[in-house]
Amino acid sequence: MKTLNVFAHPEKNSFNGALFQTAQDVFSANGHEVKVSDLYRMGFNPVSDRANFQSVKDPAYFKQQVEEVYATVNDSFADDIEAELQKLEWCDLLILQFPLWWFSMPAILKGWVDRVFAAERVYGRGKWYDSGVFAGKKAMLSLTTGSGADSYDVDGLHGDIHRILYPINHGILRFVGFDVLPPFISWSPAHVSDEDRRAELLRYRSTLDAIEELSPITYPSLDEYDGRLKLKVPVVK
Amino acid sequence: MKTLNVFAHPEKNSFNGALFQTAQDVFSANGHEVKVSDLYRMGFNPVSDRANFQSVKDPAYFKQQVEEVYATVNDSFADDIEAELQKLEWCDLLILQFPLWWFSMPAILKGWVDRVFAAERVYGRGKWYDSGVFAGKKAMLSLTTGSGADSYDVDGLHGDIHRILYPINHGILRFVGFDVLPPFISWSPAHVSDEDRRAELLRYRSTLDAIEELSPITYPSLDEYDGRLKLKVPVVK
Repeated sequence: MKTLNVFAHPEKNSFNGALFQTAQDVFSANGHEVKVSDLYRMGFNPVSDRANFQSVKDPAYFKQQVEEVYATVNDSFADDIEAELQKLEWCDLLILQFPLWWFSMPAILKGWVDRVFAAERVYGRGKWYDSGVFAGKKAMLSLTTGSGADSYDVDGLHGDIHRILYPINHGILRFVGFDVLPPFISWSPAHVSDEDRRAELLRYRSTLDAIEELSPITYPSLDEYDGRLKLKVPVVK
Repeated sequence: MKTLNVFAHPEKNSFNGALFQTAQDVFSANGHEVKVSDLYRMGFNPVSDRANFQSVKDPAYFKQQVEEVYATVNDSFADDIEAELQKLEWCDLLILQFPLWWFSMPAILKGWVDRVFAAERVYGRGKWYDSGVFAGKKAMLSLTTGSGADSYDVDGLHGDIHRILYPINHGILRFVGFDVLPPFISWSPAHVSDEDRRAELLRYRSTLDAIEELSPITYPSLDEYDGRLKLKVPVVK
């Protein structure tokens, strides 16, 4: 497999950093190809604007999707974006490694999505969800939390972790066609012992060793929706 | 009222920009005080790291919350963060104005939260949710979408908009104590007529005129949770 591991944590020696390194070690040992985007060490710029492009379609009014379509046709993305696009298009398996900050991704990773997941090149004109550009490829979140698992239960104070991750898993990864594997969640690693953290790294290692056997999260397919983009057979509430 | 309007769109002349300007106009006309953070025009840096601080607690290992607590005690946040903290602490009503990008906030706005909502100064040691630092203040999202309302219905292709906004409304705004007003959502303004967009600005104007009468979203209160942070009386599924 061709694997791309995107990493977003300011401290390389964090537990997140250890998870990031573990994935590289496991994939290399298992004969997979490994590419990485270590966003903090790259100094990745997450602010989406005209700097995404070498070209200008409309100098008077900046509409990002218009510029993205134009840059796709003219092969004129900025060098930093083109490099990430090529890694994304190259990989069979994408892993996003990050700490859950404010119940979402750190801004540097959100900006990687905002800037790199470009209209026409990565989605659009009917290419989305199970008809998406990356259909047949796999993606997985690997994240750490501040609080423990109970607080992210359906009845937990912070709310169901799967509901919290839905905008990322469904709204980003599935939107562009990936089969979304269940997230690997390290619960509150800052509040456990070194021994527990080592056990967690072994659990991650085992998960990655068997990643080709993991079943993706099930979502309704496009043909279950009508022309108004609503389910033909509504979910029972 | 003291109002703070935080704006995240690269194009000032966008419909988002018109909504941002409308809020300033309405609040000024109604005798409220108005402050703004126009993040793109400010060149706001959304990457959370040591640049958040003038101080260094631990030079060998960067743990953001440790540095935040230290900077709170030593009054040593970076100037750009301190300025935003003071606006946040000053306001009675916070409005976040943004286009929904990838089912969340643009990175520049996510980074405003990542960097400004600092431990000890803005939350922590029991100060969260209804016991939060900003208890009694109000906050509201004003956002635009790419797709229409049907697609964001409970049975819509993209999923229930309130589920999508939960990590922001509950996980950011409620977390730090705000009463969270129902979001003002402009559905797919790029795909409607000028007349419809003008009507939408009038609808926003009416909403803001009556904002002091709006009832906040209801969430369980802290005393409904047990020591494991789970509801004492589970929600019926």
